[in-house]
Amino acid sequence: MGVVGGGQLARMMIPPAVELGVEIRVLAEAEGMSAALAATAVGDYTDLETVRAFARDVDVLTFDHEHVPQAVLRALVADGVQVHPGPDALQYAQDKLRMRERLGKLGIPMPDWARVENAEQLDDFIAEHGGRAVVKTARGGYDGKGVRVVTAAAQVEEWFLALDQDGGPDAGALLAEELVDFRRELSQLVARRPSGDVTLWPVVESIQKDGVCAEVIAPALGSAGKVAEMAAQIGTTIAAELGVTGVLAVELFETTDERILVNELAMRPHNTGHWTIDGSTTSQFEQHLRAVLDLPFGATGHRDPWSVMVNILGGPVEKSLDEATTLAMADHPAAKIHLYGKEPRPGRKIGHVTTGGEELDEVVFQARAAAAFFQD
Amino acid sequence: MGVVGGGQLARMMIPPAVELGVEIRVLAEAEGMSAALAATAVGDYTDLETVRAFARDVDVLTFDHEHVPQAVLRALVADGVQVHPGPDALQYAQDKLRMRERLGKLGIPMPDWARVENAEQLDDFIAEHGGRAVVKTARGGYDGKGVRVVTAAAQVEEWFLALDQDGGPDAGALLAEELVDFRRELSQLVARRPSGDVTLWPVVESIQKDGVCAEVIAPALGSAGKVAEMAAQIGTTIAAELGVTGVLAVELFETTDERILVNELAMRPHNTGHWTIDGSTTSQFEQHLRAVLDLPFGATGHRDPWSVMVNILGGPVEKSLDEATTLAMADHPAAKIHLYGKEPRPGRKIGHVTTGGEELDEVVFQARAAAAFFQD
Repeated sequence: MGVVGGGQLARMMIPPAVELGVEIRVLAEAEGMSAALAATAVGDYTDLETVRAFARDVDVLTFDHEHVPQAVLRALVADGVQVHPGPDALQYAQDKLRMRERLGKLGIPMPDWARVENAEQLDDFIAEHGGRAVVKTARGGYDGKGVRVVTAAAQVEEWFLALDQDGGPDAGALLAEELVDFRRELSQLVARRPSGDVTLWPVVESIQKDGVCAEVIAPALGSAGKVAEMAAQIGTTIAAELGVTGVLAVELFETTDERILVNELAMRPHNTGHWTIDGSTTSQFEQHLRAVLDLPFGATGHRDPWSVMVNILGGPVEKSLDEATTLAMADHPAAKIHLYGKEPRPGRKIGHVTTGGEELDEVVFQARAAAAFFQD
Repeated sequence: MGVVGGGQLARMMIPPAVELGVEIRVLAEAEGMSAALAATAVGDYTDLETVRAFARDVDVLTFDHEHVPQAVLRALVADGVQVHPGPDALQYAQDKLRMRERLGKLGIPMPDWARVENAEQLDDFIAEHGGRAVVKTARGGYDGKGVRVVTAAAQVEEWFLALDQDGGPDAGALLAEELVDFRRELSQLVARRPSGDVTLWPVVESIQKDGVCAEVIAPALGSAGKVAEMAAQIGTTIAAELGVTGVLAVELFETTDERILVNELAMRPHNTGHWTIDGSTTSQFEQHLRAVLDLPFGATGHRDPWSVMVNILGGPVEKSLDEATTLAMADHPAAKIHLYGKEPRPGRKIGHVTTGGEELDEVVFQARAAAAFFQD
């Protein structure tokens, strides 16, 4: 299996590849990245010849991220390379305007949205939605980047200016969305095989800080009934209708009036699924491998009644990473500590902690306390 | 961390190294071995300069096997290399006669045994023990090799002849042991840090076929009381008194008259501990890493009431490894299938399956049924 991109998602595919006897190779952006252990090539994933050379010796190509250009993906498919997820599906994860248009046709519940090509259109949208809107660049955003809450079009003036200079087929527009009055954020993780099988993990609750996933509670509280059913239905429909192969994360808003709305899609293992490494019979990374290799799916049940994942972000820390790790391990022997082999920088995701157990308050406390050693 | 030896034990250290952010390097015996993904060097582990060159760039040296010669180990220690387990401990795993002598001094319960230097001494031992004995070469045996049940010294004639040609400090003798009338075989897995901390997993039952571990049931049935206490006491004593650093497996006989006797020692992760990857909060491989890096230990509780591991041996199989994997996955979605990246050969350990759950009969059935796809 070849993975384009050498970040932590590629890194976390290594353990299940080792366990399942799958040979894994990574095309990394640079030396010394998170997935360096499996990196057999270093190069630019936007360059067709680089990716083509890497793909020559693998049976299946998959991804650490969604940024490989459509032109490259389509050339690889034309070469006969097995690409999962394929370009037809990936376009909806690469372009938020296309995603909104497509989900709209499928009748998937979403926030109100509009394609806005200029300041006038955006100001109209803001006026129609209580004086506020969420504005997103169609492409290239992640972890809160390319997303802004505004009360006037002037607040994203430079994004409109950049559009004019872009010139691509989808250039010329931003995505405006209503600011949803949500109770909480949920995430529905799904995996789909090329042969069509779909499997799901129970819907989880994701707690964001500054636009970045900070904490995940699995399963989402009180999710046994209607909420879980709606989330599962939405996830299954999107995976099947968009032809996703591999893991799909559907980020959802649960509104105060008890609707479930699709916020974002990610067609790869996702931060809201890291808890599955320790908390589910089959992790999202193992399932992604099984999916892209078209192997039968593993069971997705919870191993503990509750699992909690807390991200470890780099910050202004007095102690070294080794010292923090030692202290966290000493105080929290049952916490599963995951580090991505990255140098800590303020706000950078460098790892995560997962805990599991029967009492949610204790499970949350242990995960937060273990992660805190890396931030204090 | 540097690992000498590129077999499946080194391979199974890769996932926890990846999870914990530990850089792992392997000195493999050849290209294409199980741990090839982490192999940064290929060479002869009996050659001091080869091992010395490998050790130069690692902080801690540990092992996939116990076969690195004492002279090499002691030279590395003299160089200042952190070697875990160290040569003082490893000698008892390398030489069964030394092990018996040392455990005898510690008062550890063992089968009757004797150092036999010639056929007469062995025949005397056989006569004193009901006409049968187990004869073992002091060194180099594993998985039933170097072990023979005999009724007369003539049945190991070639071993005595080989002794005469050996000439090393421990040459000149075989180990004779009484054939123990045992009810079952147990294994006590222990880990010890250089700083002295010791941790244990619950004692397990190991079912051998043709001298090779075939199946492990964790915990051992009916082991909550005295048996578990005795096994834990023996394991802790041996780890501490022999100064073991890393994982230690103590293979035990439970006799029909309810004694616990030490059969063998292994100073490394062990086949009877593979169930811990899926069945314990901390696997033996993660704990071995924590031990040799002198990090605080992880919790060793069971994740399921019962875990069962069944080895996958190569055999005369109609289908390919890929076909067998696909069939096993399809029928047993909750089974954890582990493959070592080895070409199947009759009798060769190429992987294992672990299952877990609340009903032992179901857990055993699932593990055996999944493994059977690889052997039929």
